[in-house]
Amino acid sequence: MPPTDDELLALARLVGDACRTRAVTIATAESCTGGLVAHLLTEIPGSSAYVRGGLVTYANEAKIALAEVPASTLEAHGAVSAQVAVAMAEGARRRLDVDIAVSITGIAGPDGGSAAKPVGLTYVAVADADGDAVRRFVWEGDRSANKRASAAAALAMVADRLGADGS
Amino acid sequence: MPPTDDELLALARLVGDACRTRAVTIATAESCTGGLVAHLLTEIPGSSAYVRGGLVTYANEAKIALAEVPASTLEAHGAVSAQVAVAMAEGARRRLDVDIAVSITGIAGPDGGSAAKPVGLTYVAVADADGDAVRRFVWEGDRSANKRASAAAALAMVADRLGADGS
Repeated sequence: MPPTDDELLALARLVGDACRTRAVTIATAESCTGGLVAHLLTEIPGSSAYVRGGLVTYANEAKIALAEVPASTLEAHGAVSAQVAVAMAEGARRRLDVDIAVSITGIAGPDGGSAAKPVGLTYVAVADADGDAVRRFVWEGDRSANKRASAAAALAMVADRLGADGS
Repeated sequence: MPPTDDELLALARLVGDACRTRAVTIATAESCTGGLVAHLLTEIPGSSAYVRGGLVTYANEAKIALAEVPASTLEAHGAVSAQVAVAMAEGARRRLDVDIAVSITGIAGPDGGSAAKPVGLTYVAVADADGDAVRRFVWEGDRSANKRASAAAALAMVADRLGADGS
């Protein structure tokens, strides 16, 4: 089952509380989630105190032009790769001048999958002053469910990176 | 009543069908909606054929750095103004190299309102090869409802601009 609206908002609130407590600013770089993570973060009243903005880099050209992903990285590893996820997060962190940035790149489906990179394959990366972290997931839902699962994973990774306790 | 999920998705589908039929590419520049319009557009399977990406320009610095809104326009008219909405749409159209871009800037609430610019005040602009169009709204819901109303207005304005018949 994909995360519910309430579960997604609870994660956004957890991230928001952690950003506030630690006086941390945040930005997003989203491919397959298409803006969902930024939407969730900005559902929380007062989020303008820590959300600077985000990039929705759906096309490869947008990944290059907006998130400063090197064309050579896209060519070498493909848009759905750990390397591109990290480059997107680092690019968003630079471009939006924030403390922490989170990125998501994946294949939401129903089209675009292959044997090597199936529908549902998703990488989530976080970049902050300490460096980068990246995780790989393979979701098995439909397009909308995969977007929601990716958004939840991204918010949970940020909360974890900020030391927030979601329990 | 704010638009339902089904109503929002129907509008996203209407825009998507129009983009496909007319071979038009689209991008977003969102302030108060925080990525919701891009999220809705990318809920539609196959939307990568026409959605290039989007900007979430929540902070003024992001409006300047990402959407190329002139600082002088922000100073003269404020972030929630017809002038800034138009500049955001034009900036997104240039930066993402698309045929049509839509922008939203407003005060979702609960904070940030004033006598001159109340909570709910929102401007939606569309930019394409023919020029710009901008509309002013004042929503009366809570934060989440205002975001949804703004997203519906933005999608409807794009559909109208593309000559799509939503009836």
